Amino acid sequence: MRVSEGQLVLLVSEDDKTYLVQYRPGGKFVFHHGGITFPDELYFGDVLETTQGRKVMVLEPSTAELMIKVRRRTNIIYPREAGYIITHTNIQSGSRVVETGSGSGALTIALARVVGPQGRVYSFERRHEHLERAIENVRRAGLLDRVEFQLRDPAREGYPVGNVDLAVIDVPEPWTLVPAVRDALRGGGFWASLVPTVEQVVETVDALREHGFVTIRTVELLEREILVRRGKTRPRETMIGHIGYLTFARKLR
Amino acid sequence: MRVSEGQLVLLVSEDDKTYLVQYRPGGKFVFHHGGITFPDELYFGDVLETTQGRKVMVLEPSTAELMIKVRRRTNIIYPREAGYIITHTNIQSGSRVVETGSGSGALTIALARVVGPQGRVYSFERRHEHLERAIENVRRAGLLDRVEFQLRDPAREGYPVGNVDLAVIDVPEPWTLVPAVRDALRGGGFWASLVPTVEQVVETVDALREHGFVTIRTVELLEREILVRRGKTRPRETMIGHIGYLTFARKLR
Amino acid sequence: MRVSEGQLVLLVSEDDKTYLVQYRPGGKFVFHHGGITFPDELYFGDVLETTQGRKVMVLEPSTAELMIKVRRRTNIIYPREAGYIITHTNIQSGSRVVETGSGSGALTIALARVVGPQGRVYSFERRHEHLERAIENVRRAGLLDRVEFQLRDPAREGYPVGNVDLAVIDVPEPWTLVPAVRDALRGGGFWASLVPTVEQVVETVDALREHGFVTIRTVELLEREILVRRGKTRPRETMIGHIGYLTFARKLR
Amino acid sequence: MRVSEGQLVLLVSEDDKTYLVQYRPGGKFVFHHGGITFPDELYFGDVLETTQGRKVMVLEPSTAELMIKVRRRTNIIYPREAGYIITHTNIQSGSRVVETGSGSGALTIALARVVGPQGRVYSFERRHEHLERAIENVRRAGLLDRVEFQLRDPAREGYPVGNVDLAVIDVPEPWTLVPAVRDALRGGGFWASLVPTVEQVVETVDALREHGFVTIRTVELLEREILVRRGKTRPRETMIGHIGYLTFARKLR
Repeated sequence: MRVSEGQLVLLVSEDDKTYLVQYRPGGKFVFHHGGITFPDELYFGDVLETTQGRKVMVLEPSTAELMIKVRRRTNIIYPREAGYIITHTNIQSGSRVVETGSGSGALTIALARVVGPQGRVYSFERRHEHLERAIENVRRAGLLDRVEFQLRDPAREGYPVGNVDLAVIDVPEPWTLVPAVRDALRGGGFWASLVPTVEQVVETVDALREHGFVTIRTVELLEREILVRRGKTRPRETMIGHIGYLTFARKLR
Repeated sequence: MRVSEGQLVLLVSEDDKTYLVQYRPGGKFVFHHGGITFPDELYFGDVLETTQGRKVMVLEPSTAELMIKVRRRTNIIYPREAGYIITHTNIQSGSRVVETGSGSGALTIALARVVGPQGRVYSFERRHEHLERAIENVRRAGLLDRVEFQLRDPAREGYPVGNVDLAVIDVPEPWTLVPAVRDALRGGGFWASLVPTVEQVVETVDALREHGFVTIRTVELLEREILVRRGKTRPRETMIGHIGYLTFARKLR
Repeated sequence: MRVSEGQLVLLVSEDDKTYLVQYRPGGKFVFHHGGITFPDELYFGDVLETTQGRKVMVLEPSTAELMIKVRRRTNIIYPREAGYIITHTNIQSGSRVVETGSGSGALTIALARVVGPQGRVYSFERRHEHLERAIENVRRAGLLDRVEFQLRDPAREGYPVGNVDLAVIDVPEPWTLVPAVRDALRGGGFWASLVPTVEQVVETVDALREHGFVTIRTVELLEREILVRRGKTRPRETMIGHIGYLTFARKLR
Repeated sequence: MRVSEGQLVLLVSEDDKTYLVQYRPGGKFVFHHGGITFPDELYFGDVLETTQGRKVMVLEPSTAELMIKVRRRTNIIYPREAGYIITHTNIQSGSRVVETGSGSGALTIALARVVGPQGRVYSFERRHEHLERAIENVRRAGLLDRVEFQLRDPAREGYPVGNVDLAVIDVPEPWTLVPAVRDALRGGGFWASLVPTVEQVVETVDALREHGFVTIRTVELLEREILVRRGKTRPRETMIGHIGYLTFARKLR
């Protein structure tokens, strides 16, 4: 697939370092293995040579890599939790989704790739500097056509949209958003939230129950990388022990 | 959201039993809490009453529930692995994907919901009875417009399509498909496969390396349900210990 | 090793069923593969034949099997948590340990095997029927010489012993025992407790902090069985998702 | 408990750094918070003040801390696996155990504390520098009275002892030791081995089966630390993803 001008490419060096870079014909990128100048015609899967004679692979980023490589100040990144949200709700090509807060836009990117140009992600954020960065990150990923960002605290002001299919909540106090989400969701619509601590989960689940949400369910995910080498296959010695607890629920009519 | 004729609804009984049923105005459904007759106008989030005076919620199924509730003979179901595939490859609204084998169509459903009507899933299966069931399950889920099924063994015959974005492999010998997938994928395209045993992973990774695939990575996922009740919060005592190992790779040009 | 009269043996049938039985020369044991009569001379590792011509192995039980096979009404069994306690405290041959409550005596057995005949386990239980059963189970395991049982609630009455090396707490409200344990432990002595819920852990840790305990640490353990068969090696599909949270602490002088 | 001359104490600084130090009256210890001089009379649970006016707790080390803090070149430490071995075999006060290899003596320490002065650990190591270090570490832990070290490769030379209760194997090729262990174990005796890779497990289990061992079982353990702070309780973000696979078996007569 030919890379379009402005599209993000994942550069992978010989020593497996990765860089997410915007492609411009004639654009330059310099790193610890030397520099490259992008050719006028570039395809995913190409291998370029640096000024030091080292090889660089030009790859299409996965959704996970787009999420992990966004410019951000926050530490939390969670492609596997995003994937779990995608298959454990109703989201699909064409869905209308509200997201609170925007954070660095990482989760926004995962949702926007699924809803597609016919769908819509409404993303709300109450901190101005986060919103700016999220917009810039989603723009770089080429997905701004299907995302509407707004500086707003839906816990106090409610959502300016209604009848949405899914609400994804990624703020420290999800329980404050339950009434607003209830108003914004259509009948049968889904709630999905992520928090790091047990006490936040308990508050959230209590609020969901009080407001009549049903099929409430909380899970956590563990991911283990397996180092596969014939004769020496074993799990990696380090792993991430905790990202957060995912809570799902549905609204009755 | 109003339920259309023929659409699948998830019925949830008072005792949390769930049933995936096709909606027909005037259609009947009988279960251990009595019977219901579907009204002419039905909305997701409605609550119906059975002939025994018990309540039944009418909910929109999640992708996971569509996957789990397909008619099948095989035991393996894996919404969380499907979610991980979705966020750790390039799949998105509009993608062109090959799937081998179709199995019961569960994974096909998850992929088809993401690629949307502009995308395409080409699903190959070598066993006739599996193919029939997969087609029926995808049809029931309302996604047959974007899936092309074919009775074929791509390991021997190759893929009849090319330049695809992603190949998802769910057969016992993924390594036999590596050359065919290599031909079918475009540059930078993704490989994703799932197998239950370590030895299968080793064979698969070896074949991917031999055929020049890059960024090869294997993971397994663990999922824990948390029972959230104020004062009594704890993980569920039982959990699934193993589904399989996911392997990802990319093709160079 | 020759089996002594009265010693517990683990019988393993051809289909891997296990039975913990007390050996008596001439004693009989009947199960689904027929009956056996114990010979006058029996050794661990012997294979007997049943009246139906099936084989039965006579094995020495592991500590875990002694724990799991005690006569009990409670569900919680935790050889792996017992092992973790043993290596993460100061317990060793010769130690003096208090245990509260006795439960079915399973944990008592694990502790008693380590402290040996020179050590001592003081085991307290407030429910009479539990105490009776624990005593019987420890007697059957041949360890009653080093265990002193007492019907007592140390939360209200304190411990009748002092200067102990370790306190192991297995009751629903460990925090009620913190002051009594503080009095009973010698300087540098260890606290180890096990509870199933997060809220219990929080209460326990708070109480330990308030009463000056140090090096407080909480862990949970997950255990996965691997089915090892050449060419088909994989983790078992089911596993125990949760037993409880272990909390450790030490007393200053 | 009064600390004896030569006994190991765990020093814990105000910032939770830990040091395992041998106590000598009048002995000095200097670290980043200043220096301390050990008093003539020292008790576990004492708090000393450094020359910089900082506090240091004097604690009795747990078995795990004795294991982790041994002087060593190898990376692998596994108090939780040691605990699992202790409760899933027949080891107890008075047992006779063979260990191969000695490594840094960490596992030797855990076994020696359980078998007590009436028991015996026979520890074999084929590399001279390892043996030296193991002896030194076990001596420092005050357990040399019950351990017999020998420079020997039992895979080639067999074991010089027989009729042992348990064999613990911690070498890269456990399968080479199966025949020798079979000769050394008494009927009903236990095998316990630990290896990091799947292929090693498969070899080991195959050899055990071939040589008639029974009740063969393989497990792996995962440990998660929980950070318990009221209102902010959650698992630690990092964890150890893999230590190794434990395999257990028993010998028939």
